[in-house]
Amino acid sequence: MINKQQIFKKRPEGIPDKETWDFVESELRSLEEGEMIIDQQYISLDPAMRGWMNKTRSYISPVNIGDVMRAGSVGKIIKTKGKTVFKEGEYVTGWGGVQKYCITKGENFYKVDPNKAPLSSYLGVLGMPGMTAYFGILEVGEIKEGDVVLVSGAAGAVGSIVGQISKIKGCRVVGIAGGKKKCDYLINDLGFDGAIDYKNENVVNAIKQNCPNGIDVYFDNVGGEILDSALIFLRKKARVVVCGAISQYNSISSLKGPKNYLSLLVNRASMKGMVVLDFAPKYIEAMMQMAQWINEGKLKYSEDIYDGIENFREIFLRLFTGDKLGKLILKT
Amino acid sequence: MINKQQIFKKRPEGIPDKETWDFVESELRSLEEGEMIIDQQYISLDPAMRGWMNKTRSYISPVNIGDVMRAGSVGKIIKTKGKTVFKEGEYVTGWGGVQKYCITKGENFYKVDPNKAPLSSYLGVLGMPGMTAYFGILEVGEIKEGDVVLVSGAAGAVGSIVGQISKIKGCRVVGIAGGKKKCDYLINDLGFDGAIDYKNENVVNAIKQNCPNGIDVYFDNVGGEILDSALIFLRKKARVVVCGAISQYNSISSLKGPKNYLSLLVNRASMKGMVVLDFAPKYIEAMMQMAQWINEGKLKYSEDIYDGIENFREIFLRLFTGDKLGKLILKT
Repeated sequence: MINKQQIFKKRPEGIPDKETWDFVESELRSLEEGEMIIDQQYISLDPAMRGWMNKTRSYISPVNIGDVMRAGSVGKIIKTKGKTVFKEGEYVTGWGGVQKYCITKGENFYKVDPNKAPLSSYLGVLGMPGMTAYFGILEVGEIKEGDVVLVSGAAGAVGSIVGQISKIKGCRVVGIAGGKKKCDYLINDLGFDGAIDYKNENVVNAIKQNCPNGIDVYFDNVGGEILDSALIFLRKKARVVVCGAISQYNSISSLKGPKNYLSLLVNRASMKGMVVLDFAPKYIEAMMQMAQWINEGKLKYSEDIYDGIENFREIFLRLFTGDKLGKLILKT
Repeated sequence: MINKQQIFKKRPEGIPDKETWDFVESELRSLEEGEMIIDQQYISLDPAMRGWMNKTRSYISPVNIGDVMRAGSVGKIIKTKGKTVFKEGEYVTGWGGVQKYCITKGENFYKVDPNKAPLSSYLGVLGMPGMTAYFGILEVGEIKEGDVVLVSGAAGAVGSIVGQISKIKGCRVVGIAGGKKKCDYLINDLGFDGAIDYKNENVVNAIKQNCPNGIDVYFDNVGGEILDSALIFLRKKARVVVCGAISQYNSISSLKGPKNYLSLLVNRASMKGMVVLDFAPKYIEAMMQMAQWINEGKLKYSEDIYDGIENFREIFLRLFTGDKLGKLILKT
């Protein structure tokens, strides 16, 4: 059996280029006792992957040069040897990496049921992005009914869920996204109260118009100028959830700090970082709740699925150009 | 009776210059029913005063052009007319402004007892800086025994108290201050565990040495490069208390944001702003506790007192040059 893999070859400076990964096809080795082969059907492409490529240690260790590129995945057990954690025919999700077949003993993989929810959704709305949105807005953002919630990257895998959960909880929700198509999607499909097109509008003016009394919670996926603009409009005791800074991940010069951070002082506000892995003990509870909302039609999600492990780099870069809607997924 | 006043004449850009205030001597007007004259003995000089001079509304309204410069003060009631809130001979503290005599009906003044504590201490350790330190480190910083606490502006009115309260609560405390004299004072007089001289040391290296396992709480009075250096060393669930940004208050260009703020994300840390006025209902309780610590010899404070309302500007600027130790006070 021939495996297809993306091997991490060279740490990028700025935007990953053709030197960053090697696409390798090679014969799959034979299994040892307790090992299984996962036929990976979908691979998750997330902004956080860019951070794992830097050599500085973050909340998890960097990807090593020579390793298969780290990524979340979902697939089917197609072969086992001896006594294994999962059985042939079962479906699992975990850190399978950017490759067609993954050989594993099953550590950090979890069984999922493709009859309960579409397989790909375990990478998005029921996966890490969904969990990030759920715990980020509820436990870190501490939203309550009547709050004004602003979210950036609003048409993305995390932002779109953040906004909808906020609506479910009775908040007024304004999203920031790039382009008319995404903004229309926020208003017409997801039920946001307002949408700001940062590519075609002055963000400061647009926030002022959409949130005339200021913001209670700002959920930040992007950093940079948009974070600075949001800080201007914090209300008293406002919460800024620092989930990501996608505008900065490929920056070669040092990161831009939020020059309006003293708004925290004036408004007795807080800015809190979050890492979704901390909430792992409560994932199941959250997934049950999310699944219920989906079944009730209260929570929608979209997926942008592209084919081919060999096309990984081009597809991955859509995260940073904004050229996708909802969760970005690679189909093997 | 001749009054001496500093009248706010022109909003400064950058460092206040000779155009900023007018020194005026004029005859004190006669009292109306219910009014009192306070003979102001000490006037408080605080970094926050610089912020009140900008025309943008902050947590309190800006000082108006033509008004006496706003400042805290403490003095003695020397004359009253009719039925008044305080009696002749009583001592009060409040917002008396930069002037020798203050005519008031007593709104927002509080009676103090010069036999319980030195009069000037009601502007420092028992005044706004002391309250800021107390609530900032205990309620916003949420220190607990064993925490590593880093504080900037550590030899100042707020920082020196923050460090000592942290020691009382069983923390390991490292202070950042400018110059050997201040650093010696932190270690030898105030019992800090470590001191960093930012004028003569590489702050990043020095924090690494003094806090090899990182920081649980960073209490920031200065902003700028030092805030960025501290962010690098946050431990998990660390708290950054944003109390001030004295390095930035006179900046003409836009404020510098903390470029390392994503350390909040990686470390699930938080950065919280505070305004001491929010804690007003608990001031008395805090002052009793502080007075007890002073009597027990656990809490020390120093005051730098300079003479003459006419010298206000030169004395005030010592806040920004760092040319003072402890609380800066103007004696009328």
